[in-house]
Parts: sequence; structure tokens; C-alpha cells
Amino acid sequence: MRVFIDCDPGIDDALALAYLAAEPGVELVGVGTVYGNAAVETTTDNAVRLLRLYERPEVPVAAGAARPLVQQPSLAAHVHGANGLGGIEVPAVETSPVSESAAELLVRLARSAPGEICVLALGPLTNLALALALEPRLPQLVDRVVVMGGAVRAPGNVTPWAEANVNNDPEAAEAVLGAGFDLTLVALDVTMRALATEPWLEELAALAGERAGYARRFLDYYVDWYTSVLGRRACAMHDPLAAAVLLDPELVTESVTVPVRVELSGTHTRGMTLADLRPKPEAGSREPVVLPTEVDVSEFLSRMLRALR
Amino acid sequence: MRVFIDCDPGIDDALALAYLAAEPGVELVGVGTVYGNAAVETTTDNAVRLLRLYERPEVPVAAGAARPLVQQPSLAAHVHGANGLGGIEVPAVETSPVSESAAELLVRLARSAPGEICVLALGPLTNLALALALEPRLPQLVDRVVVMGGAVRAPGNVTPWAEANVNNDPEAAEAVLGAGFDLTLVALDVTMRALATEPWLEELAALAGERAGYARRFLDYYVDWYTSVLGRRACAMHDPLAAAVLLDPELVTESVTVPVRVELSGTHTRGMTLADLRPKPEAGSREPVVLPTEVDVSEFLSRMLRALR
Repeated sequence: MRVFIDCDPGIDDALALAYLAAEPGVELVGVGTVYGNAAVETTTDNAVRLLRLYERPEVPVAAGAARPLVQQPSLAAHVHGANGLGGIEVPAVETSPVSESAAELLVRLARSAPGEICVLALGPLTNLALALALEPRLPQLVDRVVVMGGAVRAPGNVTPWAEANVNNDPEAAEAVLGAGFDLTLVALDVTMRALATEPWLEELAALAGERAGYARRFLDYYVDWYTSVLGRRACAMHDPLAAAVLLDPELVTESVTVPVRVELSGTHTRGMTLADLRPKPEAGSREPVVLPTEVDVSEFLSRMLRALR
Repeated sequence: MRVFIDCDPGIDDALALAYLAAEPGVELVGVGTVYGNAAVETTTDNAVRLLRLYERPEVPVAAGAARPLVQQPSLAAHVHGANGLGGIEVPAVETSPVSESAAELLVRLARSAPGEICVLALGPLTNLALALALEPRLPQLVDRVVVMGGAVRAPGNVTPWAEANVNNDPEAAEAVLGAGFDLTLVALDVTMRALATEPWLEELAALAGERAGYARRFLDYYVDWYTSVLGRRACAMHDPLAAAVLLDPELVTESVTVPVRVELSGTHTRGMTLADLRPKPEAGSREPVVLPTEVDVSEFLSRMLRALR
């Protein structure tokens, strides 16, 4: 499987990268970066460092958007730390990002191997929207897209109703979700139930090796923050779950296939992801996306642990 | 229990009236009417006729708002028939509505018996919003308010995200839900699971008496429409469930107590009811309301059948 990852590392992005980098069946064809969990300069630097740490230094990293299409960016230093990785220092490397932007790299790769590349989008969807603007046939040129983003029946995580990645660039999300990709939206509806809890964290802590060591240190920081939300020592594995669903759609045990919109106005609801979940939805003009509603959490967590070993 | 009913009969309103009229412990102190399921002239006429049919001709009926506070009204003749009662003719009576408006009657009754009157709101919330404007102390002057309206995690019934009563007057709903009433919002989240299905409808059909006979004929029409939504012969008992919850809060087996807002702008979400369902909601300035999430449906349906006997 040839995978392009668009991401904003970010602690859970780092774990998703570790997961995919460890999969022998995965060829990482490129990594795009975007503002989100930290500024794009930081997420780009992190992506380069992490790929070296995960022994994939040959993967091209392309810096992407520094800000959303329309609004001002809102970064999540309170969740991921000022350096995007919970203050944990990953060794610096000599490698530089490529000169193309993330959107240009994605378009070039997709054109060069039509129908072959899967896209995993783990941050705000700005780069994908830009790629779509550069190449409107992108939905036909890529294989599948898995997006971590949105909250449909679940509460939001940056407003009571909106999820961070979608809320960070609602216009981009609205464009991407309506573009006709073969797209799976891994929303808070499932990621907030894919929790790494104490027993799993202890198993991780018992693992030897640099990869597991860094994962544990990243997660220590992340869990500290999540404890204030969840009321117990645990954290949501948003991006790793999306990576796992890309690798194996069978992890999704229940889903609906529905058109999804993003509210762009709204006093309270700007940035909210909206799915028509009525028993008989109206046939709309918008292509539906797959919205997982149940996933095999324990199988996912076992696989994560195996990948970090 | 002294109850003021604000309603737009309406087939399920008619059943809620039948239910409360049959309860020996309930004193109906007044009925206000509003546009919604039909025009206010029609719902007023229906309320007068139904109270006679249910042997409560002494209850004062006050005609209320003919249109929402801001937008144009949208009537539901396709669900309730042109006469609001599925084309079933209920005998006309000599009685006339009182000269006060519904809002004025409610305010006068509340002032005359502070803390004693419960309000059951079964239509758009225009009359309650007007009453609140006439008497800002209304939340302190009435006992409890039960509102049938809204859709929080459930899909809407007039748009994919909005429920008819709230969507019919979003400004009124926003005012009422934020006014500080001791308020229970019986939303589609529970009413769409309180279905009258074939076995119950057959039990109803087997009952003797005028009250049951009319109920069956109303429901025959209503079920015909609902079959197109539900894919089987059944219907949601929205208003009767709200009446039952007013009479006995114990029918609610699970609920959350949360601030609820109504989106007033929004391209897709105007009229949507929004509750902050995050694990740790922000402390807001808005008073919370009770939002039932589970009800004892079979007990409710048994009680309905008993009341129609």
C-alpha cells in the first residue's frame, strides 16, 4: 500500500507515523505538513525528525499551509506542548524538506501513479483543499482517503460541537468532504472511544526500544492533558486509529455511508460536521462518505502496541 | 396538578389532550393555541372541539400566535391533514375561545397562583416567548415546564438537523430555553423511540368508546404518513410522551442536565437544538434544562391505552 500522509505532528500524529513506518506492507511515498497542533515550521521539523527516528529518512517531507483558507489559525500548544511533541526533544537531523509544497507533492505523486496512492489526513484539511484546487481530478487520481476529523453525534473537542481539525479550516473541510473522494471520516464518534488506558500504557512502558520509549514519553505528556478532560489517566488515540483504519478497513465494525457537510456560518455551529442521519435521508447532490460508528478498539490497541515494539 | 397546555392540535396534540383530560389528578387550568401543525384558527377550533369531546368543555381556550416571532410560519398539513386532525371531523360546539391571547391567559393564571401551575408546551414556543416578554418573572411564577421539541443527538424531522417545533420559531425557543424555567425538553431523542406499533394500535382498535374511536381514526391517518418515514406501520407519540413525562417524571429513566441553545444563524443549522454534551462542559451563564435520554416506553404506552379506555 502506497501512502501519502498529511499531518501536523503533534503527539498522536507521531504515533500514527510510528505505526505506519513499522508496517512492512506500507510504502510511505510522501509526508505533507500543516499548521494545527503547532505552527507549520514546527510540524515540518517534527515530521523530518520523526521519520529519521522511525528509520524512514528517505521519505520526502513537504511543508504545507501555514494558515487556513479563510480564518486565522488556532494552534493547540496547550495539548501538544510548544514544540508539538510534549516538550520531548527528538534528535535533530540534517535532512531538509523538499522544495515543493505539500499540495504540489501530493498532486505530483497522484498524477504519477493514478489510482495507486492512499491519503491519510491527520490535520486541518487545508493542504488537501489546495491540492484539489490545483488538480480537480484528484478524487479520481488517488485510491482512498482516510481523514481524522469531525464530530457528528459525539461532542466536539474545541467547541461543544466542533472538532479541532475540521474547525481549524471549515472551508477546506467542506471542499474536501464534498469533492467525491472515496473517503472515510474517522471522527470523534469513534476516536473518543479508542482510549489508551492505564493497563495499555503500562504495557507500552514495559516495551524496550527507542520507538516505544519515545511513544511512552509523548503519551505521558498527552495523558496529563487528557486526564483533565476524561477524569482519569487515559488519552484518545485519534490519529493512530485513522492510520489503523486506513491499513485495515475491517477494524470498522459498524458505519453509515452518508453525505457530510460542514457548517460555515452559524453563531454556535461554524465548523460543525453534519451528517443526514434520518431514517430516509433526502437524496442529495453531494457524494456520501463512510462514517465509522463502531470500531474494534481492543484489536486496534493490540496492533498499536505490536507496531511500537 | 394544575396544568396549562400550549398546543397546536394536531393529531398527537389531540392524544395528549385526551390523556391529560382523562387523568383525575389533573386540573386543566387553560389551553393556549398556536400555529404549527395547522393555522392557529384551525388549532383553536380543534382545541375547543376536543375539550368538549374529552368532557372538559369548561377549560378556557385562548387563541395564541398566528406566526413566529421573526420568520414566516411553516404548517404541517402533509402530516396532520388540512384540518389538523387527519380529515377526521370532530363535532363542532357552541363554545368560543376566551378574549385573552394565549400568552395573556398564561401570565394571568401564573400570577394568580404563583408556583402552582405546570406548563406543557406541545407546539412552537411563540406563546411562551410572548408570555415571558409580558412577564419576565414567569420562570419563578410557574412550577415546571415540559416542552416537546428539539433534536439533540437524534436527526431532525423537518431538516436533517432540526425538529419542527423548535425550527418553527427558533428565536422563541432560544428565549424560552434560556429563561431559567425548571424545564424538561422532551426531544426527538426520546420521542422517536416512543413508537406506537401495530400490536398497540390493534389493542387501541379493540377498545370501546368514543375517545378510543377517535384516537384510532386520528392515528390511522398519522400512521399512514409515518409509514413513509419509518418503513413500517407505526408512529411517534411525541406530544403524548411529553404529557406523560409532565405527569410522572419517573418515566424518564436516564437524562442529562445541560444548557441547551438554539442556533439562529447557520446555513444548515438554523433551528438546531444544541446541548453541550462534552465530558466536562464549560460552566456557562445559561441555566441548564433536563434532557431525557431514555424513557420507559412500554410503561408509557400502557398508560396511554388506559387513558383512552
